[in-house]
Amino acid sequence: MRETAILRIHCPDQRGIVAKVTDFIHRYNGNVVYLDQHTDYSEDRFFMRVEWDLEGFEIPTEQIKDVIQEKLAWPMEMVWSLKFSHQVPRMAIFVSRSSHCLYDLLARYSAGELNVEIPLIISNHKDLEKVAKQFGLPYYYLPVTKDTKEEVEKEQIRLLEENKVDFIVLARYMQILSSEFNELYPNRIINIHHSFLPAFAGAKPYHAAHSRGVKIIGATGHYVTSDLDAGPIIEQDVTRITHHDTVQTLVQKGKDIEKIVLSKAVQAHVDRKTLVYKNKTIIFA
Amino acid sequence: MRETAILRIHCPDQRGIVAKVTDFIHRYNGNVVYLDQHTDYSEDRFFMRVEWDLEGFEIPTEQIKDVIQEKLAWPMEMVWSLKFSHQVPRMAIFVSRSSHCLYDLLARYSAGELNVEIPLIISNHKDLEKVAKQFGLPYYYLPVTKDTKEEVEKEQIRLLEENKVDFIVLARYMQILSSEFNELYPNRIINIHHSFLPAFAGAKPYHAAHSRGVKIIGATGHYVTSDLDAGPIIEQDVTRITHHDTVQTLVQKGKDIEKIVLSKAVQAHVDRKTLVYKNKTIIFA
Amino acid sequence: MRETAILRIHCPDQRGIVAKVTDFIHRYNGNVVYLDQHTDYSEDRFFMRVEWDLEGFEIPTEQIKDVIQEKLAWPMEMVWSLKFSHQVPRMAIFVSRSSHCLYDLLARYSAGELNVEIPLIISNHKDLEKVAKQFGLPYYYLPVTKDTKEEVEKEQIRLLEENKVDFIVLARYMQILSSEFNELYPNRIINIHHSFLPAFAGAKPYHAAHSRGVKIIGATGHYVTSDLDAGPIIEQDVTRITHHDTVQTLVQKGKDIEKIVLSKAVQAHVDRKTLVYKNKTIIFA
Amino acid sequence: MRETAILRIHCPDQRGIVAKVTDFIHRYNGNVVYLDQHTDYSEDRFFMRVEWDLEGFEIPTEQIKDVIQEKLAWPMEMVWSLKFSHQVPRMAIFVSRSSHCLYDLLARYSAGELNVEIPLIISNHKDLEKVAKQFGLPYYYLPVTKDTKEEVEKEQIRLLEENKVDFIVLARYMQILSSEFNELYPNRIINIHHSFLPAFAGAKPYHAAHSRGVKIIGATGHYVTSDLDAGPIIEQDVTRITHHDTVQTLVQKGKDIEKIVLSKAVQAHVDRKTLVYKNKTIIFA
Repeated sequence: MRETAILRIHCPDQRGIVAKVTDFIHRYNGNVVYLDQHTDYSEDRFFMRVEWDLEGFEIPTEQIKDVIQEKLAWPMEMVWSLKFSHQVPRMAIFVSRSSHCLYDLLARYSAGELNVEIPLIISNHKDLEKVAKQFGLPYYYLPVTKDTKEEVEKEQIRLLEENKVDFIVLARYMQILSSEFNELYPNRIINIHHSFLPAFAGAKPYHAAHSRGVKIIGATGHYVTSDLDAGPIIEQDVTRITHHDTVQTLVQKGKDIEKIVLSKAVQAHVDRKTLVYKNKTIIFA
Repeated sequence: MRETAILRIHCPDQRGIVAKVTDFIHRYNGNVVYLDQHTDYSEDRFFMRVEWDLEGFEIPTEQIKDVIQEKLAWPMEMVWSLKFSHQVPRMAIFVSRSSHCLYDLLARYSAGELNVEIPLIISNHKDLEKVAKQFGLPYYYLPVTKDTKEEVEKEQIRLLEENKVDFIVLARYMQILSSEFNELYPNRIINIHHSFLPAFAGAKPYHAAHSRGVKIIGATGHYVTSDLDAGPIIEQDVTRITHHDTVQTLVQKGKDIEKIVLSKAVQAHVDRKTLVYKNKTIIFA
Repeated sequence: MRETAILRIHCPDQRGIVAKVTDFIHRYNGNVVYLDQHTDYSEDRFFMRVEWDLEGFEIPTEQIKDVIQEKLAWPMEMVWSLKFSHQVPRMAIFVSRSSHCLYDLLARYSAGELNVEIPLIISNHKDLEKVAKQFGLPYYYLPVTKDTKEEVEKEQIRLLEENKVDFIVLARYMQILSSEFNELYPNRIINIHHSFLPAFAGAKPYHAAHSRGVKIIGATGHYVTSDLDAGPIIEQDVTRITHHDTVQTLVQKGKDIEKIVLSKAVQAHVDRKTLVYKNKTIIFA
Repeated sequence: MRETAILRIHCPDQRGIVAKVTDFIHRYNGNVVYLDQHTDYSEDRFFMRVEWDLEGFEIPTEQIKDVIQEKLAWPMEMVWSLKFSHQVPRMAIFVSRSSHCLYDLLARYSAGELNVEIPLIISNHKDLEKVAKQFGLPYYYLPVTKDTKEEVEKEQIRLLEENKVDFIVLARYMQILSSEFNELYPNRIINIHHSFLPAFAGAKPYHAAHSRGVKIIGATGHYVTSDLDAGPIIEQDVTRITHHDTVQTLVQKGKDIEKIVLSKAVQAHVDRKTLVYKNKTIIFA
């Protein structure tokens, strides 16, 4: 597996951005292995993800950020992020009682398909400790009540920091995180909502869907913001239902969509294929 | 094409309904060619659509309703409807300026796929008169303003009654009908809403979808009730979109879903495959 | 959970079948909780699945089969099967090296969603023994070569019989079973083929799909017959791909479809919702 | 609507292609409004579509091709095509008896959504002449028999040339064109096949799908080559079916997919979003 650098940028739309960026990489003998860009003409904003092979690249790895800042980012007013393919992100998983999303993530992780480290799983219930044990992962049981919520979040944050967690996956974690918590991890908390947002935001979406009589249900993987269920959407999918479906069969059918949607959203994040701008995402090809 | 009778019923769930209904048909020498039923256990309600060949059926056609009422409906507290396959429903189409749904309906009608008569098209704009002319159909241009709305609706109703219209299709008709109008045609006005309801009810759903950053858009065919965009859903479908899509491309992609969803909803209604109960639909197989 | 009886039948189409069957159940004080039927007019064949509550049913459980044979099956020339909801089927899983389907089945099993017993997992590779261990299930490593195949199948069959296995799931088992093996378990071996059959039957379907340049790939869950990849289809699903996809990304995207399709096919079988007739399936609602 | 130039290229993969191409456009004061590229690493081949505003572009329109050839195509061994947005392609439609695809194309054309000129419709049946008349388009009835086929094709080609046709749409034209005919219009004849290719190539795909018992049917829009139903695929879509479906309902459900898939394939071609390489297509975003 070759080492690559992954640069994601956005900046005001202007002539010659792609040329300048790719030219920069080639001048220092880098070989582009991925390039995708998008221009939002209504926002006059340019977005790009470029990845190049570091073998033979003439800027030492530890200096690349400085050179990019000087040569590219400053003159073109770029907001940017540089990652290296050998940096494996550290992912915490928060769960409550449903196991389907947790199993789906851990099965991929175990098969070497999801390139992350998982230092810990946190839950407000004991139910899924056995799943963590199956995969040999630390499990922290931190029950939450109205009165203890603030204190528990402090402990959660302590654990996350101690374990150098890069991002958090809420795999059907049935608690709402405080704004303070969310703001510590901007665009780094991924939630699965069990409806096709913005339809049926809030609690009990399958009951609401059944009551409304929709013919299709869905699930939404999104970054968490302080505005509940309103964060930037990463991935959505749906499945067809009929009048035969009860709330119980909706829950069951929904699980299959939830777990795939969440895992795809996590995969996109891990692959550095996502970019957030003004509460919307660019998902690179 | 053989003549058939189509019976749709719903009633309190109870033992032996299917047996009693099919037994009734067989006793009079009817041959069942279609049977579909559904029990909603949360409502303790039974739903059924049964269709039988009238050839050799021993109750004269004009007396069937009376016999059903006495032998089946009364003892089992059924709400029911009987139609004959030779009864071709008369459909009015309301349009504004977009032609895609109108063309889709008329193309099916013209190919003999949609078994209706179309006595008239009504519009608040002149734009689509040429389409009506292409298909040789009467077109009534009735512009609507706030002040004339009540008067115009009276004229619309007069035209509908004069033309013995059975049901109305709002094929992207951009006016809201009054409660009085809607109540004249309960479960007999079909609308296409250009979003995946209940997401983005109301005006400009594609703008709202673009602004929210959803990854999937949809369309909803539903019966019209006085509660705007909240009527019983007949059919929905969706299509995947990306960050590349603008409001304009959403509108364009949406048209393909809208026209197919509306035509399928109309087809289900024409085939007497729909049944409304408490703001939800049963769509028989 | 109430005890129910599940009757699946097919027979020549004739008047009054539904009436006779439901009448039979009611006469002995059974309460129908599920009924779905289908008539194939091109084959003049009738299919039905009916389920009734055994509480208060006046025929003793051990005599029901005899009474059905005499009163219903014999006079109507039915092919039929009777199961009781408390009969939990015993499922063997065959795997090779890919873990995604195995994990998906075991995650459902572990969550209590898949109502089976799993007495054993058989594999021609050692790779997935660790997964079996995670879930505390017996794992038999039986490597297969051309020369040992016959002998290995004998051992497999011995294990299956010893463990009273009712049906077998080939969860990406990359060996072809002999006709003799298949015939021991007619319509009781479920395979997942990693293409949208009949497209790309045989080996390396993702390579073939990539080479052909299709825009959609799929997976097929089917009963195994001696005619490779040609058995009755239970479930299929697809996903959209683009020219950006390589064989490797097709394999990865395919895994998500494969595991969901296989698990749905297994669920349908376990719920006794499937019925095979002339190499096709009826999948009851 | 601003005038743009659309350049599609493919060439051996090499460093700096995007930089060189966009640099070329900027040097002459062109403003890029669209850029999408793809690298096929297994073929070591680079593909790109770039579109730029011609206002202020400093190379006179009639000289652009020469400059591209000299400055870009020659040094980078490019295969390339340059089109201008004001060049409206001239499209011939071939039909037989089914009207659904024809109506869908003409409805879009009539609504100004499909930016083509339609100088003629050719058919081997008289049935759809009335549709051509509805839209005021010339209709040539050229019946085909085994004996007259060669002669008829000559007449068809004469008509196409006389009408300066750029590309041909086979909108359910039920005749096979000769290799000689196909070779006159390489990658410029678009066909709709009524199955999910490569499944059910050849005649009567819905009969074959029904007989095989698939759970999903589809349609395929592709460029025509001399190898029947094996040309480069532009667009595919599918719909779910059940055991209730007969060949007749498959035909009906299939029509909805066929017409949308064909129209999308035609739209992609008209927008110059397609590029063929080695029997596969790149479909630009």
